[in-house]
Amino acid sequence: MTYLDHAATTPMLPSALAAMTEQLARVGNASSLHASGREARRVAEQSREQLAAALGARPSEVLFTGGGTEGDNLAVKGLYWARRAADQGRRRIVASPAEHHAVLDSVEWLEKHDDAEVTWLRVEPDGRITPDALAEALGDGRDVAVASVMWANNEIGAVSDLAALAEVAHAVGVPLHTDAVQAIGQLPVDFGASGVDALTMTGHKLGGPMGAGALLLRRDAECTPLLHGGGQERDVRSGTLDVAAIVGLAAATRSAVDERGERAARLTALRDRLVAGVVDRVPDAQLNGPALDDVVAGGPGRLPGNAHLSFPGAEGDALLMLLDARGIECSTGSACSAGVARPSHVLLAAGADPSRARSSLRFSLGHTSTDADVDAVLDVIAPVVERARRAGAR
Amino acid sequence: MTYLDHAATTPMLPSALAAMTEQLARVGNASSLHASGREARRVAEQSREQLAAALGARPSEVLFTGGGTEGDNLAVKGLYWARRAADQGRRRIVASPAEHHAVLDSVEWLEKHDDAEVTWLRVEPDGRITPDALAEALGDGRDVAVASVMWANNEIGAVSDLAALAEVAHAVGVPLHTDAVQAIGQLPVDFGASGVDALTMTGHKLGGPMGAGALLLRRDAECTPLLHGGGQERDVRSGTLDVAAIVGLAAATRSAVDERGERAARLTALRDRLVAGVVDRVPDAQLNGPALDDVVAGGPGRLPGNAHLSFPGAEGDALLMLLDARGIECSTGSACSAGVARPSHVLLAAGADPSRARSSLRFSLGHTSTDADVDAVLDVIAPVVERARRAGAR
Repeated sequence: MTYLDHAATTPMLPSALAAMTEQLARVGNASSLHASGREARRVAEQSREQLAAALGARPSEVLFTGGGTEGDNLAVKGLYWARRAADQGRRRIVASPAEHHAVLDSVEWLEKHDDAEVTWLRVEPDGRITPDALAEALGDGRDVAVASVMWANNEIGAVSDLAALAEVAHAVGVPLHTDAVQAIGQLPVDFGASGVDALTMTGHKLGGPMGAGALLLRRDAECTPLLHGGGQERDVRSGTLDVAAIVGLAAATRSAVDERGERAARLTALRDRLVAGVVDRVPDAQLNGPALDDVVAGGPGRLPGNAHLSFPGAEGDALLMLLDARGIECSTGSACSAGVARPSHVLLAAGADPSRARSSLRFSLGHTSTDADVDAVLDVIAPVVERARRAGAR
Repeated sequence: MTYLDHAATTPMLPSALAAMTEQLARVGNASSLHASGREARRVAEQSREQLAAALGARPSEVLFTGGGTEGDNLAVKGLYWARRAADQGRRRIVASPAEHHAVLDSVEWLEKHDDAEVTWLRVEPDGRITPDALAEALGDGRDVAVASVMWANNEIGAVSDLAALAEVAHAVGVPLHTDAVQAIGQLPVDFGASGVDALTMTGHKLGGPMGAGALLLRRDAECTPLLHGGGQERDVRSGTLDVAAIVGLAAATRSAVDERGERAARLTALRDRLVAGVVDRVPDAQLNGPALDDVVAGGPGRLPGNAHLSFPGAEGDALLMLLDARGIECSTGSACSAGVARPSHVLLAAGADPSRARSSLRFSLGHTSTDADVDAVLDVIAPVVERARRAGAR
């Protein structure tokens, strides 16, 4: 089986799996005061320090969550509610229309339910958000509760310059949240140096477990909880700490960050060979998102593991199924729970026409990817595209 | 080590641990369309069916969550928001003041943030909520968005008759949520037969993993999501399905429910011996909550594994620490994340005076509990109470 859907989820790293499995066999609620509880707390706090160190954050800035969707919802809604409560004039949210649905749908819900006003950012044709676009949307910032721009796009791999964006937001006093779910382990991510106020990350995109993530939140950022209760995590995120998953999350993050440079170079080489090989075999295939050698703020301008291509005249879903039948697993964009074929909202936001958006395929590489995986795609891509085109023409 | 804090968290059942560990090593996002994704989906749906069957629910009524706190927050806020959106006149919430903080704090936040009006239910001296108290609080129900009453109290073990309460709520058209986190595996719980509209359960109280739970939600109950995004779980709870934890949750639930009768009988005998032995050694110790042989709706009126006692003149925290130093782990009530000693809100709600509430200790038994655990407590309880009293008298 050729697994090229690491952006949807990637296998657990053996070290993270071992650390988590060991902890699963132990008992202890980290909020309990007895020895087992204190030991669970110690393990959780050690993981918090490990995670913080890997991401340039202070331990007190790490709030453990149930994953990326929760982190995005907590940041967008929590910052909006807190900033609006402090000043009713702040009812505007500024966000990119190319965000993950966890951000998009949170924003749209606040619009409907909490009387928020939304300004959608201009997206560059390669999927990036520029500081100029943010400055323009923020205006004097006085009526803005929160801004949200993802670090790297999950579909087309476009990387934005978060440090520059944070500077723009802070110049007008607006807190900036970033969904960095795809960035960590592929790009250099330093929470403190970036200046962003809140950052969402999750475990299962970088070799940790599902159901575990973190929101990095600056100490001075006021955030209303989404989950009320026992008062865990600075009273911003209640719920029994899932210590085993937290151990797995921290171990995976540390390993993904420590090995990032080497892994990114390897993935970039594989990805470039994949794209070149596909375009060689299907000459009218179009690369979506930034150029392969693009650079942003001194780092890669595109996620090293991301190859997103359109195949004019072929339906993405048909391509996906034909490849799957040949043992190659990829996706048309982000995982679509409804199973309904829709053109990618990311490509549409970047100005692509709907037919290009519907004919696209994402190959995403990760820590288990090899040259053999690339060869497997190159072996079948031409006949698969040909067949999908014939099916579409009927 | 004598672990008598199973109500805070209980060790994973070996079968659940094995099932979860096996799944952790597999890759696949249950929302992906390729073979690995479909296999993850198949495993998750099988777990859903298993969980539903164990709890008398239909598979489509099972919404997987990140645990009890999330389930309580989702039910209370989600039902409130949806019912209020349908009719602005419904701004009242009816709840018990002896609920877990995940319910209490959600209710209080809605009061502050969403203009809800709260009616707190009358609590019987043994901690129970009667149908009469609910009927009185609901009135004609027209202005009530949602009611919430826990199945069994986490501190003093009081069991309420949820079927009778649901009948009262439905008679005036109000949906009823119940936090059944402590009930499942100890009491017979049948979601369908109970008639409740929403039921919160979690894994780590019954031998499953932390970070995984479910909200059972009737198909006709409108519930606004807390987490927006990919549209998983009937669009009520977005987020990548944590398949490994779900497998562990379902396996543990099935086992806890299948073995409930036998386990409950064993725990009841151990618990009764514990309480009798403690009262024998410390004659002025007072049992809090229902009588040991209490019966509600044909079943136990008190959680089989629950022993909650007050020791007049001794501080609960001092007792806890002295026992911990002797290798016996218990709690003063629910796990208190802040480490601040406060009298139990449950005992206060049940009418106890603050000094009694502050001098209490909870021993909670579970699947690994033995006669040796009970003996360990009985061996030391008299000198420990004596010492705590001397410390308190200084």
